[in-house]
Amino acid sequence: MVKLEHIGIAVKDINQSIALYESLLNTPCYKTENVESEAVTTAFFQKGETKIELLANTITGGVIEKFIEKKGEGIHHLAFAVSDIFAEMTRLSNAGFVLLQDQPKKGADNKLVCFLHPKSTNGVLIELCQEIID
Amino acid sequence: MVKLEHIGIAVKDINQSIALYESLLNTPCYKTENVESEAVTTAFFQKGETKIELLANTITGGVIEKFIEKKGEGIHHLAFAVSDIFAEMTRLSNAGFVLLQDQPKKGADNKLVCFLHPKSTNGVLIELCQEIID
Repeated sequence: MVKLEHIGIAVKDINQSIALYESLLNTPCYKTENVESEAVTTAFFQKGETKIELLANTITGGVIEKFIEKKGEGIHHLAFAVSDIFAEMTRLSNAGFVLLQDQPKKGADNKLVCFLHPKSTNGVLIELCQEIID
Repeated sequence: MVKLEHIGIAVKDINQSIALYESLLNTPCYKTENVESEAVTTAFFQKGETKIELLANTITGGVIEKFIEKKGEGIHHLAFAVSDIFAEMTRLSNAGFVLLQDQPKKGADNKLVCFLHPKSTNGVLIELCQEIID
């Protein structure tokens, strides 16, 4: 793992939260993006080398809405940049961590991603991500 | 706010979690520190410019234990480095954020800190921190 790439925060209303985080972080939202496969809309802020990614569902019953129903709005996941996602998945699986995907999938922000089950990481949902080089 | 300085993760057993996070992050814990005023023991890992700080209580009934009872182990707070904590507290208070302290207090890792109430930040406990220059 190279660095903390972003922190995902689950919110109910993306527009209200964009205004809130622009005020909080004192920096503008530089990008929004829909991830249609997940029915999620995202908004990004940069602070130093780390991004803050707000996440809200665009349909009822989506994964972010279910998270908020259970735990309330708040931090959803930590994403670490890796240089070789396949090698890192193998390393972590061999070390006993539980991967939620057998293969990396396409995530937001032009990334290949894989998640680790929080039961093996003290309750923290961890994402591995690697930029897709076209 | 300059950058994300660290992420605090609430855990039950600091020694088990140090071993777990050394394996997960593939990097050694470089420091442990007790914060006696909070009855908390901490362990630090560096990834890029951000630290991961594990937090466990050293007494029963402490603030971390209460957090875990309510929400389970997991991410407890995000800490942003600021260059002038007094100015940033004034800016955020004027913008409608709720500060948990009127004055900065001494935290772990030689920092002055102040927390924002999560009810004003989409459920995220935010810490402002500024290094103490002796």
